[in-house]
Amino acid sequence: MKKIGVLGAGTIGMSLARMLYNSGHDVLVWSAVEAELVACETTRKHKNLPGMVIPDGVRFTRSLEEVCTDKDVLMFAIPSVFIRSTAAKARDYIVDGQIIADVGKGVEESTFMTMSQILEDELNKDGKHGNVKVVALSGPTHAEEIALDMPTTIVAASEDMDAAKYVQDVFTNTCMRVYTNADVIGVELCGAMKNVIALACGIANGIGCGDNAKAALITRGMAEISRLGTKMGCMEQTFTGLAGIGDLIVTATSMHSRNNRCGNLIGQGKSVEEAVKEVGQVVEGLNALPAAMALSKKYDVEMPITMALDSIVNRGANPIDVVEKLMSRAKKSEVSEDVLIQFFEKKKAERK
Amino acid sequence: MKKIGVLGAGTIGMSLARMLYNSGHDVLVWSAVEAELVACETTRKHKNLPGMVIPDGVRFTRSLEEVCTDKDVLMFAIPSVFIRSTAAKARDYIVDGQIIADVGKGVEESTFMTMSQILEDELNKDGKHGNVKVVALSGPTHAEEIALDMPTTIVAASEDMDAAKYVQDVFTNTCMRVYTNADVIGVELCGAMKNVIALACGIANGIGCGDNAKAALITRGMAEISRLGTKMGCMEQTFTGLAGIGDLIVTATSMHSRNNRCGNLIGQGKSVEEAVKEVGQVVEGLNALPAAMALSKKYDVEMPITMALDSIVNRGANPIDVVEKLMSRAKKSEVSEDVLIQFFEKKKAERK
Repeated sequence: MKKIGVLGAGTIGMSLARMLYNSGHDVLVWSAVEAELVACETTRKHKNLPGMVIPDGVRFTRSLEEVCTDKDVLMFAIPSVFIRSTAAKARDYIVDGQIIADVGKGVEESTFMTMSQILEDELNKDGKHGNVKVVALSGPTHAEEIALDMPTTIVAASEDMDAAKYVQDVFTNTCMRVYTNADVIGVELCGAMKNVIALACGIANGIGCGDNAKAALITRGMAEISRLGTKMGCMEQTFTGLAGIGDLIVTATSMHSRNNRCGNLIGQGKSVEEAVKEVGQVVEGLNALPAAMALSKKYDVEMPITMALDSIVNRGANPIDVVEKLMSRAKKSEVSEDVLIQFFEKKKAERK
Repeated sequence: MKKIGVLGAGTIGMSLARMLYNSGHDVLVWSAVEAELVACETTRKHKNLPGMVIPDGVRFTRSLEEVCTDKDVLMFAIPSVFIRSTAAKARDYIVDGQIIADVGKGVEESTFMTMSQILEDELNKDGKHGNVKVVALSGPTHAEEIALDMPTTIVAASEDMDAAKYVQDVFTNTCMRVYTNADVIGVELCGAMKNVIALACGIANGIGCGDNAKAALITRGMAEISRLGTKMGCMEQTFTGLAGIGDLIVTATSMHSRNNRCGNLIGQGKSVEEAVKEVGQVVEGLNALPAAMALSKKYDVEMPITMALDSIVNRGANPIDVVEKLMSRAKKSEVSEDVLIQFFEKKKAERK
């Protein structure tokens, strides 16, 4: 039994809190949203996870100090825009060397930092937290399914492989299979950028494209995220993995995805503002788009789908014209020149 | 304008025949199935593509000689089990050096040959066809969508890159974007093996797994196909490409896929025989499974999903027990040891 402090009582936080409790851990949940806490505590239900019962043993607190103190693992399950401010408030209660599992996704717009980088940066502003061990947890993980004990896989990524393995041990159970990975930035980049591609898939759907186009957008979308990530020093295998293509598949093919729904409305002719208003919640793909554009420029990586999306969202281009343009770009090979040369050299050698 | 001979009047053959005609080519279609030819010719409809009208300019023939003679490209759109016999009958009418685009998928059970290998092997049985240029065409390409001019991408793969580019030119139009690739065996391996994974996805669905599990099966399924393929000398990028993960996505997420439907029935408790009977058509995943098992053994590659499927289909294992077993295998890293070592060495070097 490990002692787990959960920060954030949203769908992913509460579904995992319940799961951890049911696999024998001691679980204490904190949230900055008083109404959310009260509802979970009194009804033992989460309004967005109607099928789930929160076991009585899952405890709640209003004290950031209590949730952070004396825990084997802290799980941050906080919307990306609040992660820095929450870390600042929690800093004094978190010991150096603390293992933190982060399930939040996004890139900070002003710094391009990922969630693990923000946590490390913000917690160490006092110079006394140089050794917190942040493990990014990411993968194809609809909270709605975790809440019902449906089989799910996830990646625990940290450059500190001992920390990643610790989190793997804690989160593994009969319904959750955890794979470790060292490439934390790659895993987090996927988590942020997938929403950009999901938004593009939604738009394609809205203008009447079908499953062929969606599969192409997912495949070529991950190809451009991978091109960017490997230039940033990430591992190619991360992008073909569960946090990469795996998470993009559930996000882009899910009717529940806000990015998908928002894109769909834009594709049907609504303005971006109208679409966002109709969705009524944060559309992460729109938030991640400026970072994607800036990173593409900074690392000089061709990202045609991201650029096409930007032209629709920020420069008023007509989605139908944009798809036509994407389809009629110069004819290409699927693999880069250097890989082709390697391939033919290997073939030649084999034949000798 | 190019002269195209199409062998086979199934859904994929006819949807591409119409597309090629509409983009300005001369198209002649042959089929061994008289009823199919008569129906297409007289009704200008295909029974399995109800929304499509076959333009009057698409011509039909009962003569294998006529369809093969004096063509810039021959397109083979024939079920995998008939490709060798058709090639044998057509041999005398096909010139050496002929460019052949093959859209069939599968692996010959007795030889493990892919479609391009079968064509090359069978056509050259007279010793006079050492230079036919087979280009495999594969990707996320539901015929139902090609038939309606919905945007689609596809890969044209051949070790003869000039032939691949020729086919790219012929098949490219405003609705079809073609990428070239040199790794023809990799592309064809994906086309055959995807059905095994789609069948597994169907079973998972049938026992009540959700989108998280499906995305995991797609991702880890392609990982095991990729492990096999790279050991066979294929390119890793093929498996992350349109004919790899792209095609697997449309196949495994489509409700129309026979493999999916058959798996679903097995997951719900039907026997394999009952499930196949109820689907009423060839279930390619079942046919490809022996080859997948044999190749896994031959190349000594761990393929846990393929093995799990085999235990259900051929050894009477209970799907629910099998999923439990898959979930509770030894804890793993997502990336191989050698890639991790490389990654940390690169990181260390960067920090110096």
